[in-house]
Amino acid sequence: MTGWQQVLPLGAGASLPRWVADARLAQLAWSRLAEPEDLEARRFVGHRGPSAALERLASPAPVSAAECFEGESVERLRRGLARWASRWDQTDPERDLDRLHALGGRVVLPGDAEWPDGLALLDGDEPFALWVRGPLDLAAACERSIAVVGARAATAYGERIASQLGIGLGDAGATTISGAALGIDGAAHRGALASGGPTVAVLACGVDRAYPPSHAALLRALCEEGLVVSELPPGSSPMKRRFLQRNRLIAAAAGATVVVEAGWRSGALSTANRAQMIGKPIGAVPGPITSPSSEGCHRLLRREAVCITDASEALQLLKITRADPERPVPARPHDGLSDLAGRVLDAVPLLDPRSAQSIVGAAGLPLEEVRAGLEDLVMHGLVVPEGGGWRRAPLEEPPTGRGQ
Amino acid sequence: MTGWQQVLPLGAGASLPRWVADARLAQLAWSRLAEPEDLEARRFVGHRGPSAALERLASPAPVSAAECFEGESVERLRRGLARWASRWDQTDPERDLDRLHALGGRVVLPGDAEWPDGLALLDGDEPFALWVRGPLDLAAACERSIAVVGARAATAYGERIASQLGIGLGDAGATTISGAALGIDGAAHRGALASGGPTVAVLACGVDRAYPPSHAALLRALCEEGLVVSELPPGSSPMKRRFLQRNRLIAAAAGATVVVEAGWRSGALSTANRAQMIGKPIGAVPGPITSPSSEGCHRLLRREAVCITDASEALQLLKITRADPERPVPARPHDGLSDLAGRVLDAVPLLDPRSAQSIVGAAGLPLEEVRAGLEDLVMHGLVVPEGGGWRRAPLEEPPTGRGQ
Repeated sequence: MTGWQQVLPLGAGASLPRWVADARLAQLAWSRLAEPEDLEARRFVGHRGPSAALERLASPAPVSAAECFEGESVERLRRGLARWASRWDQTDPERDLDRLHALGGRVVLPGDAEWPDGLALLDGDEPFALWVRGPLDLAAACERSIAVVGARAATAYGERIASQLGIGLGDAGATTISGAALGIDGAAHRGALASGGPTVAVLACGVDRAYPPSHAALLRALCEEGLVVSELPPGSSPMKRRFLQRNRLIAAAAGATVVVEAGWRSGALSTANRAQMIGKPIGAVPGPITSPSSEGCHRLLRREAVCITDASEALQLLKITRADPERPVPARPHDGLSDLAGRVLDAVPLLDPRSAQSIVGAAGLPLEEVRAGLEDLVMHGLVVPEGGGWRRAPLEEPPTGRGQ
Repeated sequence: MTGWQQVLPLGAGASLPRWVADARLAQLAWSRLAEPEDLEARRFVGHRGPSAALERLASPAPVSAAECFEGESVERLRRGLARWASRWDQTDPERDLDRLHALGGRVVLPGDAEWPDGLALLDGDEPFALWVRGPLDLAAACERSIAVVGARAATAYGERIASQLGIGLGDAGATTISGAALGIDGAAHRGALASGGPTVAVLACGVDRAYPPSHAALLRALCEEGLVVSELPPGSSPMKRRFLQRNRLIAAAAGATVVVEAGWRSGALSTANRAQMIGKPIGAVPGPITSPSSEGCHRLLRREAVCITDASEALQLLKITRADPERPVPARPHDGLSDLAGRVLDAVPLLDPRSAQSIVGAAGLPLEEVRAGLEDLVMHGLVVPEGGGWRRAPLEEPPTGRGQ
């Protein structure tokens, strides 16, 4: 991405491509222009509609306070326009569509019959579009579905369980949703495919990419018998932050999320965390407490996750209705965090809850500011209340094995 | 035990042994005369005091309605007297005390300084006396204690975890309470002893017995460095039902109960169940879901048990205060169950809750009677409500490996 100067790719008066005026194509253009984590872009397009938003992007007029909607500021809008303009040259939704159609794919946009109901829970963080390959109906497949996720660095135990869950869900006619990654994800998809059950892979790259390369055959099978889905247009590369954003789609599309194996700071925990934040039930498969690959699962079990030992127990999760879904939080929890909140965060313990009063000492801040900081952190999903005190929510980081 | 005819061991006018008049010795006599599971005996002695109760037992007068206290009936009292009289000949608390003192032991009675506070939670099901060996103060040892229990048929994994918990608790200065059985219990005690930490074994036989025989050296070490406790007088044999009763003492004496490994129907679950019923926190150590030896733990984790992976997490259980301890239930859940309740019980599923309405069909009883039966079953701790329906509480059965 370019820096922060305002880039004006089109000269004033240059004519805009005709797809700008087509709302569906314009929407697809935005899925190229903005990163999945770019909440500013979603807000910008949401307020103006995709075509008008593109026209504004192409206009050389300086940003004025008058044009800002609620939640926007001149400064942030100026930065946003510069960011999106930097991808203008690469953007051609007609070419992207052609590429997808050549692969037998299709796009699904918000409001389309195939758009999964659960994505509405993302509330402002919904994807611009889904690029889809495979014979199943996406909305129908998500209707009775379990996300089976876990670490890439899985053990033989974990992979065995994941594939048994996929088989069991398939046998019950339920859909296995996962991320097609190495380890748990792949095993879950394979189990589902083996049982002839529906399965959906949500990728962190274009649906034309075979990533990870060793899963090329699996992805091909998923395109033929299941579904492969991405919010990124064809050709997009898998990038670290895209995996975290992808996780929110898995969490929202599935009826419940089950973590099979996850290290202490595994990225799979972020999927569970997302699911929980939007009010979806979560489960975790236990393992030997001597296995670092199960530490994240045990951590979840010490919180709200239900202990899952087979597919029928996973399906029971679908019957749980959360009385109090936590409010959806922005896509990037650390984004927009004040210095104050950051300082308070450093003083919040990872596991054992600590009272606001005792955070005062650790943070070196007055109680009033600690309270304000905590409120901010809770809003960002970084801190959770527990037993009258406060502790950190699981970190959203990509799998790195055992951290601490 | 003899049948049900009224046995009159002392002829009318024969003089009673002098210990009958000594309240402490009379109390000890009752711990010989009545089985731990004999609630009727506790009620009988509770209403009259131990000496007067013995005098009534020795009297040949037929039972009259006039002498019955609340909760007693002529019929039940007649049976009770016959039952207790059948052990009269074996009863000599002075001899029992001599035997205990010869081993360096002592007795602790309700109200004594060493009587563990937690036993009061048993509410009508407290033991008559505790026969104790070992250098520790029993009440002090129970103050900050965790029951570490589990299957006799433990795996190497389970034994390793149990001994690590014992070590960790000992390092933290907390007491490991267990039952000195093969498998998990022994490993927990050994860990505690290895760390020099306090540990208490509660036996289902006399404290002079080395049971299981292969734990003779362990029991010796416990007598020298920890505590060995039983509600049964010296010489008493370990019997199946005594193990279940022993479990209630472990659950009540400890601050919290952690199950390390337990099969689907392991007796260790009864300890957790007891702890839960009297409002004590319970924890369970997860294991591979492929291991039958962890099935009971996972079953607990799907209920109220907290996931425990180390000693510090076990100690955190002590901070949990249950807002709503379930009401204590009688010692023997099936005791006094009506035919109606028994019929309803057969129709209540083991795991997946079923509505009262759907139990109607299965039980072949009108809804009103099903409701009455369910109420009875809940009172007996045999059935628990879940998600608007009903299912069975874990069965209280001695360890038999994997059932189902």
